[in-house]
Amino acid sequence: MSDQLKPKFDINGLITAVAVDDVTGDILMLAHMNEEALAATLETGRVTYYSRSRQSLWVKGETSGHIQELVGMRVDCDQDAVIVRVKQTGAACHLGRRSCFFRAVEPDGNLVDIAEA
Amino acid sequence: MSDQLKPKFDINGLITAVAVDDVTGDILMLAHMNEEALAATLETGRVTYYSRSRQSLWVKGETSGHIQELVGMRVDCDQDAVIVRVKQTGAACHLGRRSCFFRAVEPDGNLVDIAEA
Repeated sequence: MSDQLKPKFDINGLITAVAVDDVTGDILMLAHMNEEALAATLETGRVTYYSRSRQSLWVKGETSGHIQELVGMRVDCDQDAVIVRVKQTGAACHLGRRSCFFRAVEPDGNLVDIAEA
Repeated sequence: MSDQLKPKFDINGLITAVAVDDVTGDILMLAHMNEEALAATLETGRVTYYSRSRQSLWVKGETSGHIQELVGMRVDCDQDAVIVRVKQTGAACHLGRRSCFFRAVEPDGNLVDIAEA
């Protein structure tokens, strides 16, 4: 098995990135990175994604100030997904919530808002 | 905002699912669900994915015995990703590792195997 990062980008040139809060261990958000975003994240220590809607590089928090400072990165067995462990400033979610995953799904499909600490 | 689960499936009819170990809180793996897999997961409590390679429903652990019992599910703000919190039997990774994310990525792109507890 490779001991070098050799990401398996999908047909759109992307891998999936899961951001985890370094303090709480909670999953904050899920987004995507292209080769440039991944390299920028590792080089600058500022987590950078690729925005599929804007079709451009997206330095997280560049406009909102809600930056993500890279603490560590992991890659999965088939190298098509990474975890970025981050120091999150402010809210990761564009709705102002700490995490994008602020709703629990009940077995019947009802969504329940999770109170945050 | 909707208080009902209304997943935003992609062009292939899939959403991303991140499995988290209920005991440790660690991310175990990342996979995909179609509408049928998502419904089966909620109905049966056995985490079920859609295998993109086999193009079929994939009841996790059906052959290996390494099942995932659903403890809870969360959905993100735009409903294109879910977290499944699971009781994992055995290894989540097909390589026999507890988690698929067993390698750290160093800034220079080197991968370092993470010792497991």
